[in-house]
Amino acid sequence: MLRHIIMLRWTPEATEDQKKAAEAGFRALPGAIAQIRGLACGPDLGLSTGAHDFAAVLDFDGADDWRVYQGHPAHRALVDGLIRPILDERASVQFDV
Amino acid sequence: MLRHIIMLRWTPEATEDQKKAAEAGFRALPGAIAQIRGLACGPDLGLSTGAHDFAAVLDFDGADDWRVYQGHPAHRALVDGLIRPILDERASVQFDV
Repeated sequence: MLRHIIMLRWTPEATEDQKKAAEAGFRALPGAIAQIRGLACGPDLGLSTGAHDFAAVLDFDGADDWRVYQGHPAHRALVDGLIRPILDERASVQFDV
Repeated sequence: MLRHIIMLRWTPEATEDQKKAAEAGFRALPGAIAQIRGLACGPDLGLSTGAHDFAAVLDFDGADDWRVYQGHPAHRALVDGLIRPILDERASVQFDV
């Protein structure tokens, strides 16, 4: 299993509605992309200073399915339409679990 | 459940042995810290440019257990002894799953 993690830091101007729309967009992905084996995501809880604002953990059977996800129209629409407009910083890792 | 994610970028000077020791240190944590409900971790697979080098996903029953973990001697020993000497960058998020 391949685990794909992203952490996002929103711009200071990002509104709560925009952040919620991005989260809803993530939660809709498994319904649109069959290669997603699991999704957990959510806003940071504010427990530690300097944390990013949002994280998503997505599981795939392997790198090929992850690549399908990367290029999938539903993923591209989320990134280009809901994330990029309010994105300040992005960190990611893909690792084997 | 609280999910704690960290992403680490190692210094250029970090050796493979040092990186493997840090990973082994993470994998030993559940045996030392009862509050850890789940751990998945590993080095980045090199599938995307700019990714961090390592990620760990740890699950806890809630914030109180996460705080026990944060201050636990086994965690402190890992951070101070094996991670900090080779750490270039760290990103984290804690969110509800």
